[in-house]
Amino acid sequence: MKISKDQIYNTNQKKITQHHARFDFLANELDASGLQVNELVDKLVAFQVAIPSWALGAGGTRFGRFSYQGEPSSLEQKIEDIGLLHQLTQTAGAVSLHIPWDIPEDTLAIKEKALENRIVFDAVNSNTFQDQKNQAFSYKFGSLCNTNKAVREQAIAHNKEVIKIGNDLGSKSLTVWLADGANFPGQNNFQTALSHTEDSLKEIYKYLPEDWKLFIEYKPYEPNFYSTVIQDWGTSFMLANACGPKAYTLVDLGHHLPNTNIEQIVATLMLKGKLGGFHFNDSKYGDDDVTVGSIKPYSLFLIFNELVYGIENNKQNPYPAWMIDASHNTKDPLEDLMQSLEAIQIAYAKALLVDQTKLKAAQQEHDVVACQEILHAAYNTDVRPLVAQARINAGGAVTPIETYRNLQIRQSLIDIRGKNSVASGL
Amino acid sequence: MKISKDQIYNTNQKKITQHHARFDFLANELDASGLQVNELVDKLVAFQVAIPSWALGAGGTRFGRFSYQGEPSSLEQKIEDIGLLHQLTQTAGAVSLHIPWDIPEDTLAIKEKALENRIVFDAVNSNTFQDQKNQAFSYKFGSLCNTNKAVREQAIAHNKEVIKIGNDLGSKSLTVWLADGANFPGQNNFQTALSHTEDSLKEIYKYLPEDWKLFIEYKPYEPNFYSTVIQDWGTSFMLANACGPKAYTLVDLGHHLPNTNIEQIVATLMLKGKLGGFHFNDSKYGDDDVTVGSIKPYSLFLIFNELVYGIENNKQNPYPAWMIDASHNTKDPLEDLMQSLEAIQIAYAKALLVDQTKLKAAQQEHDVVACQEILHAAYNTDVRPLVAQARINAGGAVTPIETYRNLQIRQSLIDIRGKNSVASGL
Amino acid sequence: MKISKDQIYNTNQKKITQHHARFDFLANELDASGLQVNELVDKLVAFQVAIPSWALGAGGTRFGRFSYQGEPSSLEQKIEDIGLLHQLTQTAGAVSLHIPWDIPEDTLAIKEKALENRIVFDAVNSNTFQDQKNQAFSYKFGSLCNTNKAVREQAIAHNKEVIKIGNDLGSKSLTVWLADGANFPGQNNFQTALSHTEDSLKEIYKYLPEDWKLFIEYKPYEPNFYSTVIQDWGTSFMLANACGPKAYTLVDLGHHLPNTNIEQIVATLMLKGKLGGFHFNDSKYGDDDVTVGSIKPYSLFLIFNELVYGIENNKQNPYPAWMIDASHNTKDPLEDLMQSLEAIQIAYAKALLVDQTKLKAAQQEHDVVACQEILHAAYNTDVRPLVAQARINAGGAVTPIETYRNLQIRQSLIDIRGKNSVASGL
Amino acid sequence: MKISKDQIYNTNQKKITQHHARFDFLANELDASGLQVNELVDKLVAFQVAIPSWALGAGGTRFGRFSYQGEPSSLEQKIEDIGLLHQLTQTAGAVSLHIPWDIPEDTLAIKEKALENRIVFDAVNSNTFQDQKNQAFSYKFGSLCNTNKAVREQAIAHNKEVIKIGNDLGSKSLTVWLADGANFPGQNNFQTALSHTEDSLKEIYKYLPEDWKLFIEYKPYEPNFYSTVIQDWGTSFMLANACGPKAYTLVDLGHHLPNTNIEQIVATLMLKGKLGGFHFNDSKYGDDDVTVGSIKPYSLFLIFNELVYGIENNKQNPYPAWMIDASHNTKDPLEDLMQSLEAIQIAYAKALLVDQTKLKAAQQEHDVVACQEILHAAYNTDVRPLVAQARINAGGAVTPIETYRNLQIRQSLIDIRGKNSVASGL
Repeated sequence: MKISKDQIYNTNQKKITQHHARFDFLANELDASGLQVNELVDKLVAFQVAIPSWALGAGGTRFGRFSYQGEPSSLEQKIEDIGLLHQLTQTAGAVSLHIPWDIPEDTLAIKEKALENRIVFDAVNSNTFQDQKNQAFSYKFGSLCNTNKAVREQAIAHNKEVIKIGNDLGSKSLTVWLADGANFPGQNNFQTALSHTEDSLKEIYKYLPEDWKLFIEYKPYEPNFYSTVIQDWGTSFMLANACGPKAYTLVDLGHHLPNTNIEQIVATLMLKGKLGGFHFNDSKYGDDDVTVGSIKPYSLFLIFNELVYGIENNKQNPYPAWMIDASHNTKDPLEDLMQSLEAIQIAYAKALLVDQTKLKAAQQEHDVVACQEILHAAYNTDVRPLVAQARINAGGAVTPIETYRNLQIRQSLIDIRGKNSVASGL
Repeated sequence: MKISKDQIYNTNQKKITQHHARFDFLANELDASGLQVNELVDKLVAFQVAIPSWALGAGGTRFGRFSYQGEPSSLEQKIEDIGLLHQLTQTAGAVSLHIPWDIPEDTLAIKEKALENRIVFDAVNSNTFQDQKNQAFSYKFGSLCNTNKAVREQAIAHNKEVIKIGNDLGSKSLTVWLADGANFPGQNNFQTALSHTEDSLKEIYKYLPEDWKLFIEYKPYEPNFYSTVIQDWGTSFMLANACGPKAYTLVDLGHHLPNTNIEQIVATLMLKGKLGGFHFNDSKYGDDDVTVGSIKPYSLFLIFNELVYGIENNKQNPYPAWMIDASHNTKDPLEDLMQSLEAIQIAYAKALLVDQTKLKAAQQEHDVVACQEILHAAYNTDVRPLVAQARINAGGAVTPIETYRNLQIRQSLIDIRGKNSVASGL
Repeated sequence: MKISKDQIYNTNQKKITQHHARFDFLANELDASGLQVNELVDKLVAFQVAIPSWALGAGGTRFGRFSYQGEPSSLEQKIEDIGLLHQLTQTAGAVSLHIPWDIPEDTLAIKEKALENRIVFDAVNSNTFQDQKNQAFSYKFGSLCNTNKAVREQAIAHNKEVIKIGNDLGSKSLTVWLADGANFPGQNNFQTALSHTEDSLKEIYKYLPEDWKLFIEYKPYEPNFYSTVIQDWGTSFMLANACGPKAYTLVDLGHHLPNTNIEQIVATLMLKGKLGGFHFNDSKYGDDDVTVGSIKPYSLFLIFNELVYGIENNKQNPYPAWMIDASHNTKDPLEDLMQSLEAIQIAYAKALLVDQTKLKAAQQEHDVVACQEILHAAYNTDVRPLVAQARINAGGAVTPIETYRNLQIRQSLIDIRGKNSVASGL
Repeated sequence: MKISKDQIYNTNQKKITQHHARFDFLANELDASGLQVNELVDKLVAFQVAIPSWALGAGGTRFGRFSYQGEPSSLEQKIEDIGLLHQLTQTAGAVSLHIPWDIPEDTLAIKEKALENRIVFDAVNSNTFQDQKNQAFSYKFGSLCNTNKAVREQAIAHNKEVIKIGNDLGSKSLTVWLADGANFPGQNNFQTALSHTEDSLKEIYKYLPEDWKLFIEYKPYEPNFYSTVIQDWGTSFMLANACGPKAYTLVDLGHHLPNTNIEQIVATLMLKGKLGGFHFNDSKYGDDDVTVGSIKPYSLFLIFNELVYGIENNKQNPYPAWMIDASHNTKDPLEDLMQSLEAIQIAYAKALLVDQTKLKAAQQEHDVVACQEILHAAYNTDVRPLVAQARINAGGAVTPIETYRNLQIRQSLIDIRGKNSVASGL
């Protein structure tokens, strides 16, 4: 299903006068402080976040899963869902495929479907943390790190296959997340596991097309509860350096130990030209994968502050790949994703307001109070009118969730797909 | 299947001379320091830990599950597995049922089967964290805390049903673990959720037979990632007090925030007469549910030090119910449980060695160095001969895992049950 | 020194037109959504936070301290500093004394000085975590929990003395923070330490004047690194209940283990009528005591959301005592406190905007997306004009820090007090 | 003061028969399992740990300090204290100087004093986290990272001075611990701070004598509570690589976020040839700096397991420098250090017992249960007789703390130095 431009336009009309009043007031204020409001809005329009193919269904925990009705049960339907999101928000113009959950049966048809929905193919993701039916070897004791060479070779071959699929679709990068690790002390030899992983990644890297990038994810724990081979950014960075210039570190916000200063990691990676990709979500305890901005919005702002600074100043770093990686245990997945997209845009907009010149001067003078005031001046600003204006400029909805509800889209999806459809994924 | 006494006896013979030498040496040492070795061994013999009915199969994480071959696919087979464990270790003489995963179809037959395996029925566990087929209302948004009265009533009725089943089997306590909570700020009104939970628990309490106990578990997070209604021992203790004298707090080692001093919680609860039950497992990050003693054996010792002290000194506290609550993602579940049982016995034995008189004197004099020396003297002692002796006295194996492997028990289970049998549980 | 009303008025004039434009725009918006703007502003005017007497000087860590120039070196000067803060912010109308750092030599003169500065005396704080010169017994191994009765009696007597001093000044509450605990396993008997503490607190409670309250603080660690006698709210709550109706729990934001859900603790305590006091600060790692709102402003908002709800709905709970308890290691202490006060007012103002009726309805319907939207609608609002209006109404500065800098107050303090004056405190 | 060999010999006599019985029994057991007991004991004899010059006095927290009587008040007395430790334990044959707390006034005399006590000079430590009297620039806002070039130059010059002092004494390495960081978001530009730090370290590196090493320490927080420039091993490793082959990472056990897998970091660094030094202590919450082995002795064993493996297999890695870095807030510093030394030797001895051949085979076969059994077989062994035998072989005491107490050494130190002597340090 699709939403027509007229539907969005008509719904917007009820909100547009109020929106204009708010936007004009804010634009005046920003103007007066020397900001180019049009440029800000253009930057927000240009900021596009990929939706992973597994994020359109309900998520779950090890204690079970509560299904959501009207879930997409095919890759086509997933792309349609992202198309809906993109129509409403104009911020979700890409899909990130997960293989083997979403192997296209008909590549051309899928490309067509994506084009129709104005969706491009972002990074493809391999999966060596689960066993698939008819798989020769099990990944129970690791994949790229396995002591058994045959298992490593199977995992390498799978990654090559994923590259091939991605290449056919127009993707330009491979994201490797390894669950490899150990549940118990002694289970793995740390050095052997790391060396095997490095060698395996190099094999995959060799196969990478010239214009592709390899993103190496890190995570301290889960699903292994004693150790993970790529436990932190330092390990990922070391492996990316060992692979070569097309290999990068990927930061997932939920993949850190308690209290980690993530924004500092972001700054370090961009300084060294090695921040390749970024997975958005939020968390209070571990890799909770809850809606972006729902728990620690100020941290998200501080991270965007580093991203904005790095994009501006670190030409050695490529423009990062953005993706939402959240799990929708409690909410309608589409509404949840709209809340995440809004939170990302808000954090980005606030970061764009930071007066970098004044901040630099205050840092130079060690005027710590002023440094904080400068950040808070940006953060305390209500930027929702900017974000809405960017959506309007691009043809999206003033208030996406309200529009989604008014148009009764979930009900239409249920009518089409039924109550018991199940999306592939976790 | 069963192991004959002869099989155990014969396997023991190969080890018995070496064991005696070790035991005699240790017994002499302990004797010389004024300890009654026979009493120590008797206490170890008497210490029995319940095995939950869901612990006989492989566990999993939200990222999937790797099956183990020969899993028990019925309650009868689960009791048989516990019977095997108990024959080998003589420490696992009880089962803790989980309803509705393990509702006995024929109560008499199950009681017979248990008697045959010398297994008693410990606490029964209710489940209101998952939806069962044909359930009228969903627990997606909570059970005993739900804003919808009908959901609360359904959950209360389920708990009553569990009591009834347990009563028929000879259980004397109900363990309530509530996943109730919220994934997002604002989702729940904390006060309403807590009040509903208190009222619901009181309803269940009313239904409790005269000689039963109610154990109220607490947990800070998972499967809810923003808040949990019974988030800590303080909340559980408050609710237990509100219910009445038959209600107690249950401590699960994995249900705490990072760095919590669990042994202090144990001491406080025993002082106040409110420690009802205890779930053993180990963890490095969260509720990892790995083998007892595999990560922090010294913490386990410190906890046992408080338990031993409390059992000796706090007559206001009932003898606690012990259970292993671990997940077997990587190991053969039966071997994993034997490692857990051994770790528990070792920690208990070491705690029994602590010279309480000297410790008290050192504490009184603020001789902190001596306090540590006294604990370390106990902890550094190699108590494995004591634990083995206790097993031998009770008819178990000198080396349970070795015996299990030599007797090729897993292979026999696979032969009987097949490679693809699946145990009910997580 | 003092700031004249004219000085504030004149400085305000440069900002007032801009402020009015902002306030009017916001007031219109809030009006349209059914809020009583005047009532909101009045509530902000009424919200007063105590400044502790030790917060006017530079703070330090165990690695040292970098002094700040112009620190107050007497209680009189400390009250003057709070007077300055109050003139500028109109939010700091109380002082919380710490004994023995700030024993008034001339009670009448001090009361006069406070009156002059429109400062009242909030809770008084005892100190049994440090040894004072000529003290008979050391608190090295604990105070109210000490195994030595003479030490406990000394500590009880000190608390009585603090009550007496507070009573003379007009205070109505005593805050007890105990560092008591252990650095090593075995050092303390948990049960003995807790029982002694309970008995000692009861002794102090007995001495409490009729219209006084006793606030019992909790903290998981530091300065003791293995255990703390009152380690969490549960312990404090239990002790407060044991003492009687005038005893309450005091929550300090920095006194929690990583990831604790503090707002839930607040809600629970208010439901049970036992939240007595509140210490504001912020932290990323432990009890960092940094500026309020500088690290986790959304958490602060969520906490205020519970406070606002509780003040409105929990008549069983007294109006809590508010205090800032931060350490000023890097910033001018007065500027730091102004940033804290602003952050508190912002969080309070946003919490007042939450549409409680809609929220309740969304909670009832399990519309989790709507629950989040309602909180975010309040949180994303830029409430700075409300907070500034409240200050203006009360005679304070539109922009307190800017005014403080324009009036060169720190320089005046240095001129009067010198560069090397040192405030008593940590 | 000094202990005579006769004193130790005579005290040992009372214990020696019992010791021999224990040692012989253990040696037989180990022999039977194929271990070379003499080699084990020789390795323990050879293992020497440096004592930092600041560890001979009482430590403190930001809440104060409780002095210990008889503290050494000069560098000579500190070396004497280490001499006493070394005589008793034969494990403390080195001192690590901290500049400027312990600048030798007469280098030759100090060298003489050290020689006399059989103490060598290990790594020297610079201090740019505190301001010294008459220092031109303050380190309040950082040293090697400071935005002010003059501050950076002062800090570089100080490090050069420390190298010079160390060189005169015979040290061969410099340890740089930087407190540099920020208390608030925005205070520092992460990229600038990191770049300045890298440049400054390179300047110091250039000055390093040919046969010296540079150890770069990392720490996530404290004394800065928002960010630290060298926050983790990844940053330290990156900087060490940037400096050159003589630069290494130094691991301090307390300098990690909660739940960090430290043993994996150790393994990674040794694989890459970059583990230079090691600071021993223990902790439950943060950088608690409590006695080694007092909180998590099993973690210490797992770390030693990696160290033993790396020393054996990673010829690319130099033999690491060992030091105890603990704080003595509650215990007699000398007794505390003896407990730490014992804990280190116990962990090392147990790690030496791990059957590496069997472990490798079990890892290869993914026999996780066996992997754990192999580690536990080593860990559960009571190795105290081995450690005592090593001490006896080297001329030390069978039971150092008991001997220290019997000889009333603390009393003698008080008699010589007085009750109120204060050691320089934190």
